[in-house]
Amino acid sequence: MDRIIEKALGGDHRSIARLITAVESEADSSRKIMQSVYPHTGKAYFIGVTGSPGAGKSTFLDKLISSMMAAGQSIGVIAVDPSSPFTGGAVLGDRLRMQGHSLDPGVFIRSMGSRGSLGGLSRGTYEAALILDACGKDVVLIETVGVGQSEIDIVKIADTVALLLVPGMGDDIQIMKAGIMEIADVFIVNKADRDGSERVVREVNIMLDLQSGKEWRPPVVPTIAESGEGVELAARSLSDHRRYLASSPEGERRKRRRHRLEVEEIVKREIAKIVEKTWDDRISAGILEDLEYRRTDPYTVAGDLLSKVLSG
Amino acid sequence: MDRIIEKALGGDHRSIARLITAVESEADSSRKIMQSVYPHTGKAYFIGVTGSPGAGKSTFLDKLISSMMAAGQSIGVIAVDPSSPFTGGAVLGDRLRMQGHSLDPGVFIRSMGSRGSLGGLSRGTYEAALILDACGKDVVLIETVGVGQSEIDIVKIADTVALLLVPGMGDDIQIMKAGIMEIADVFIVNKADRDGSERVVREVNIMLDLQSGKEWRPPVVPTIAESGEGVELAARSLSDHRRYLASSPEGERRKRRRHRLEVEEIVKREIAKIVEKTWDDRISAGILEDLEYRRTDPYTVAGDLLSKVLSG
Repeated sequence: MDRIIEKALGGDHRSIARLITAVESEADSSRKIMQSVYPHTGKAYFIGVTGSPGAGKSTFLDKLISSMMAAGQSIGVIAVDPSSPFTGGAVLGDRLRMQGHSLDPGVFIRSMGSRGSLGGLSRGTYEAALILDACGKDVVLIETVGVGQSEIDIVKIADTVALLLVPGMGDDIQIMKAGIMEIADVFIVNKADRDGSERVVREVNIMLDLQSGKEWRPPVVPTIAESGEGVELAARSLSDHRRYLASSPEGERRKRRRHRLEVEEIVKREIAKIVEKTWDDRISAGILEDLEYRRTDPYTVAGDLLSKVLSG
Repeated sequence: MDRIIEKALGGDHRSIARLITAVESEADSSRKIMQSVYPHTGKAYFIGVTGSPGAGKSTFLDKLISSMMAAGQSIGVIAVDPSSPFTGGAVLGDRLRMQGHSLDPGVFIRSMGSRGSLGGLSRGTYEAALILDACGKDVVLIETVGVGQSEIDIVKIADTVALLLVPGMGDDIQIMKAGIMEIADVFIVNKADRDGSERVVREVNIMLDLQSGKEWRPPVVPTIAESGEGVELAARSLSDHRRYLASSPEGERRKRRRHRLEVEEIVKREIAKIVEKTWDDRISAGILEDLEYRRTDPYTVAGDLLSKVLSG
């Protein structure tokens, strides 16, 4: 494993893939891998790209990658796929792979499942991003579908979040009203040659203007990813946000939040394992039936469980 | 507090409201309250109602309540509100309250915030449902907005989940493809007098037919909640699902899942408190800076934290 880590840190894609697989499958070596790569992290820029299915994320990413590579940056891509029983999963990764960049030596593309078909980012998503960071990628793009928890989780690990909207999806604005809007640092209105795109741009701008007192006013960039129009401008808006973060307390705040999250996720995971073990014993002993027949209550059971866990 | 619990168990709405407030605010008395009411739970039927903003959930609920009350059932309603900075929160509860049933002695209506504007069900949602159960409500309706995590969480606590769709929202079908579809036991296509409603009904039916091997085939019910059309049929479909659960292993499975969740949520919450305390001390001592400058790594920090927590 030492040899693989060394080669991965040198930029070898095959070795990087093996590290990610080990961490994703929670192999025994994961802890060692992460401890070895961690000192080399902190240089890459993590961009989250999210939006409804059909918003054109893959095409947009493809063009964005071209633009960033032209600027001399090396790129890692993590595509988080909701593995729907209807589609068979891994759709986005495949779609990306069908496009231009999979054979390009500067781009590393990896698709990962989400936690259940509705769930959040999978356990290994953030670790994969850290591995790509340590292994020399300048930019890590994390693509999530704007459904359920993964869209929300992305905020916790990305430096900058881009939200793709498209005209003609009736509830975009309504969804935004309910809160999705707050997660985006850059708004992309894709398929801007469609009817209604100007209305979407206008409405988003109005909403953003209503949010007063924020240091960073998210730009709204119309693009036609298919032809590449506007993608350059979108790339520039992303860089602007990166520069803003570098010079503002918000950047510091996000870094601290991410460090907190790193530690807390590991602690949660470990405690969950310990609890699960104790809990499984109780379940085998019929505790769920006791609850069902109200012979005990969840508070008493939880208290017992807790004192057992804490006393080792 | 004993007196209030006693009155609440007798059905007094004012006392029920006070218990829910105590539990929601995590008052010292919460544990005692929940331990006192728990033995009286297990009789009510929990229905989750979810769907996009604008799908007409409040109107549908209003009519559903009328129909259930006509059948002699007493009703509790918990409306989970995404407290958006744009709307000021508590919208759904207000909307319900503006309609017919708030003064009706048979209906108890409570609106609760969601965990952050994008987050899941708030801490007290399930407890509130249990309190309503213990205090004699036959049916507890839990309304969540179909955005983010609360829609997903509802599955964990409801016996039956109804998903409201409306024609003319471009991405309904796409969202369903990505997984939302799996959570629903009954599909309601509301505003069925609108153009395109037949297409939505047909498409949902096709998708449901593709899911083979399931014992319960969710019905798709067109309604016009505004006029009340179809609501009776929707109510009957909900009862059908309840009867199905009562006689199938799936019903048993859901009960067990819920009991697991009850205990696990309490354990998680308690451990989180202990971790937080230890963690806060480390943060004050500058551990986040150590991480920022890579003087240590999250795995080492998490390991230290964990052994501290587990050794008491």
